[in-house]
Amino acid sequence: MTKSEEKKSNAVVLLSGGQDSTTCLVWAKQNFKKVFAITFDYGQRHNIEINAAKKIAKLLKVPLKIHKIDIFKGLTKNSLIDKKMPIKAGKNGTLPTTFVEGRNLIFIASAAIYAKSLKIKNLVAGFCQADSSGYPDCRENFVKAAEKAIELGMDHNFRIFTPLMWKTKAESVNLMKEMSGLKFLAHTHTCYEGKKVACGKCPACELRIKGFKEAEEKDPIKYKK
Amino acid sequence: MTKSEEKKSNAVVLLSGGQDSTTCLVWAKQNFKKVFAITFDYGQRHNIEINAAKKIAKLLKVPLKIHKIDIFKGLTKNSLIDKKMPIKAGKNGTLPTTFVEGRNLIFIASAAIYAKSLKIKNLVAGFCQADSSGYPDCRENFVKAAEKAIELGMDHNFRIFTPLMWKTKAESVNLMKEMSGLKFLAHTHTCYEGKKVACGKCPACELRIKGFKEAEEKDPIKYKK
Repeated sequence: MTKSEEKKSNAVVLLSGGQDSTTCLVWAKQNFKKVFAITFDYGQRHNIEINAAKKIAKLLKVPLKIHKIDIFKGLTKNSLIDKKMPIKAGKNGTLPTTFVEGRNLIFIASAAIYAKSLKIKNLVAGFCQADSSGYPDCRENFVKAAEKAIELGMDHNFRIFTPLMWKTKAESVNLMKEMSGLKFLAHTHTCYEGKKVACGKCPACELRIKGFKEAEEKDPIKYKK
Repeated sequence: MTKSEEKKSNAVVLLSGGQDSTTCLVWAKQNFKKVFAITFDYGQRHNIEINAAKKIAKLLKVPLKIHKIDIFKGLTKNSLIDKKMPIKAGKNGTLPTTFVEGRNLIFIASAAIYAKSLKIKNLVAGFCQADSSGYPDCRENFVKAAEKAIELGMDHNFRIFTPLMWKTKAESVNLMKEMSGLKFLAHTHTCYEGKKVACGKCPACELRIKGFKEAEEKDPIKYKK
């Protein structure tokens, strides 16, 4: 698809309410005709991010669908859904405890079902391989396989756009700055602990802080002192 | 994987309670060491099939997980979930009204999450391209793409077995007969109308009746006179 073709078509953005998906929403607004967003209420401990998604969608005048997903509970254990399980980064090749098995495939499938109901073929997501928590379902080869699976399984010529796939967090900050300044990031939620003031210590906060530091920009959200 | 390797490993079977998945369950019992089953309660109008799955799992001494999936409602319209919508077969290239967008991808992802929690890599499903209702997510190329997506997205070397993929319904009936006789099929539920006595007229009943007729076998379930 050429740039001018994108401009004539619509897209659905997977919006968590975090930094990356918000950057993708702004990117999608610049690259597609009409943009819709979908966010997932999947029992995550930081479901405060749904409020962030609502606020951001409102500011950017994008219709937001909040979709409840009850699928993970009882199938898999992880510290994002089981609040009693401690949040730990992966070590020596193990996955972080925050990894929710199958999550991005379920999200992509759900967003695709929604997009097809709107006759939309383009999905936009903030998946990032270059500078991520090491989740296998943020990698490009996974996204390509998932794209094929939704295309064939739903007989609909889907395309998944991942503008941040090969960007470092610092490059994502810079992209956002170029597109719209950093004002929308003030409303994003990243911290896994799920409180309005970010803990500054969990793996998600660490990654965000590192990005702003490397970009030499001030993060507009508040952190615990 | 060779036959002897399969015999040493375990499998999770996607069991709807219908004819094909029940045939696959018997097949899996013959080809794997330990077999688990998962069935989905996804708001289907024929949720009576869950009772069939329970009965069959019990008869075959297979642990059954019944997993509730709330994902489709509000995302997509179809006559399996919306009881007021009429059941109609696809015509001139359109999909049947019973097609639930994204269903098999969500089922595969969920079964994979469950299988990984049991440290199992083999999934078995009754998807059939040769003699089906024309659902795109029963085709082999879709299953291959989904297999790749779960493998990459969950960093787990999954393999999806689809022993009925290229069999006609008559050949499936014959396979079941060879493996165990047709006795387990007496407990299966196929009819979309969701009543114990099958309507004999819906596309699912038609396909089943045709299979038994071509196999020259008597279907052990009851049909409305």
